[in-house]
Amino acid sequence: MVKLAVAIPASVVSDTPHLREKTSKIGLIGRAAAIFRVDEIVVYADNPKVNQGRDVDLIAVLLEYMETPQYLRKRLFKIEPRLQYAGILPPLRTPHHPLNGKAANLKVGEYREGVVLSETKEGLLVDIGVEQPALLREKQFAVGKRVTLQIVKAGKQIEVQAVSHEVPTYWGYTVTVERHSLKRLVESRKFDLTVGTSIKGATWKGIVGDLAGKWKKANNVLIAFGAPTRGLYEIARDAGVNLDELMDFVVNSVPAQGTETVRTEEALLATLAILNVQFGV
Amino acid sequence: MVKLAVAIPASVVSDTPHLREKTSKIGLIGRAAAIFRVDEIVVYADNPKVNQGRDVDLIAVLLEYMETPQYLRKRLFKIEPRLQYAGILPPLRTPHHPLNGKAANLKVGEYREGVVLSETKEGLLVDIGVEQPALLREKQFAVGKRVTLQIVKAGKQIEVQAVSHEVPTYWGYTVTVERHSLKRLVESRKFDLTVGTSIKGATWKGIVGDLAGKWKKANNVLIAFGAPTRGLYEIARDAGVNLDELMDFVVNSVPAQGTETVRTEEALLATLAILNVQFGV
Repeated sequence: MVKLAVAIPASVVSDTPHLREKTSKIGLIGRAAAIFRVDEIVVYADNPKVNQGRDVDLIAVLLEYMETPQYLRKRLFKIEPRLQYAGILPPLRTPHHPLNGKAANLKVGEYREGVVLSETKEGLLVDIGVEQPALLREKQFAVGKRVTLQIVKAGKQIEVQAVSHEVPTYWGYTVTVERHSLKRLVESRKFDLTVGTSIKGATWKGIVGDLAGKWKKANNVLIAFGAPTRGLYEIARDAGVNLDELMDFVVNSVPAQGTETVRTEEALLATLAILNVQFGV
Repeated sequence: MVKLAVAIPASVVSDTPHLREKTSKIGLIGRAAAIFRVDEIVVYADNPKVNQGRDVDLIAVLLEYMETPQYLRKRLFKIEPRLQYAGILPPLRTPHHPLNGKAANLKVGEYREGVVLSETKEGLLVDIGVEQPALLREKQFAVGKRVTLQIVKAGKQIEVQAVSHEVPTYWGYTVTVERHSLKRLVESRKFDLTVGTSIKGATWKGIVGDLAGKWKKANNVLIAFGAPTRGLYEIARDAGVNLDELMDFVVNSVPAQGTETVRTEEALLATLAILNVQFGV
């Protein structure tokens, strides 16, 4: 299975003055990523002329908050100004955000995200979102750590084990940040296929055959997005590189657009939708 | 060119209690429609068990407000509770929402939306969003009417004519309502191709060949969407019809979705994105 990463520029929130609207935009990005089973969202600084550290961090923390199962949020996030409107973030409704909060309904073999609460003689006690903590008979995790677990014993005493294999369903995305530039992101990581999106890119029909061939062989794919106010060609140029040289493909996923600009969150959903039906992302 | 209509269920706003979030959802729908050059948005009642008149009207009025060039909004809409959060609707940035508000920058041949202000001896005076009204030497339009116009004389005295031909660029969508059911919408209108979207629909790869053949010959296409809480199969059944018999195709445009549900506004953007690259909608 291809590991899919998407790169989102910090500028995506720069043109929206209010935190509430920034939050709602980031909510759409998290949803699009989860719908299309994205493994990693990279938030990158796209404008070397300004310090975008705050925007990078804001996007990252809100995406992480959104990706965290609701029952663990209070344990992993402190109340802070950036989360003021986190309540309007839409729920992901992914398999790792189970609605069940009752121990009686747990099934052996089920996967759960948990947070380590404390250490006992027998092992660690872990909050897995039901009335009582579960026992993890391993001690290699620190208190406060989030761990992916599997139920090995249900009933009065719940026992879990840490999961070392890949969970067989979509299990959320990770969030990473690239504080320097898109150029450094592409050059410092081992993506074996990189695709940029731009209104100036090639048509889908023109590249789909070529792309399909590369996609089949790829393990780590990066899809990079620009912002309406700063397109990907401009972002690459400001980082001192030609976009066509930096990326394997640059594609226009919204040919003949009816609006002057397509927003990042719109382009993300559109592009992933096309990739999903084309390549079964 | 295919005339493209999309059908949106009233339920799209039923699961959101606050007007602000309803408004923001409708904003995404309007954007998706404009990005992919949709000609008509039909808002339909999808639940015969409740009176959805208010929701139908709310969606329609906000979509119409959004489609109206900013300089005409005050003339065509009164301040009212449903428009309380209209300020958060994202701008469409379509060609019929020009940023230029200066008479000096008007060009002969340019298209503009206008509203009739008054009648004079020479003809009608029309607000076209610049400092002074333009003269329309035709009198068949009532005061207050919105008209599509073309500049025939620029300079000190601006003259316009009504446009009877199709404007050569995307010129916004119309909004219609179907207060009875999706069944009545499909049966009462002359669509020559109807496509429903559902998680239970066929795969794109399975139908794309067939669909492409029908699409080429079609003049009026309808793409219908359900709501997360009420899928299209359920909506059709409640209207007393089998969805597979009602629509020419039922397709799943988000195969292997990572989230339990896909929202209407997300499905709309995803589906139109795919159709756009496949058929150049």
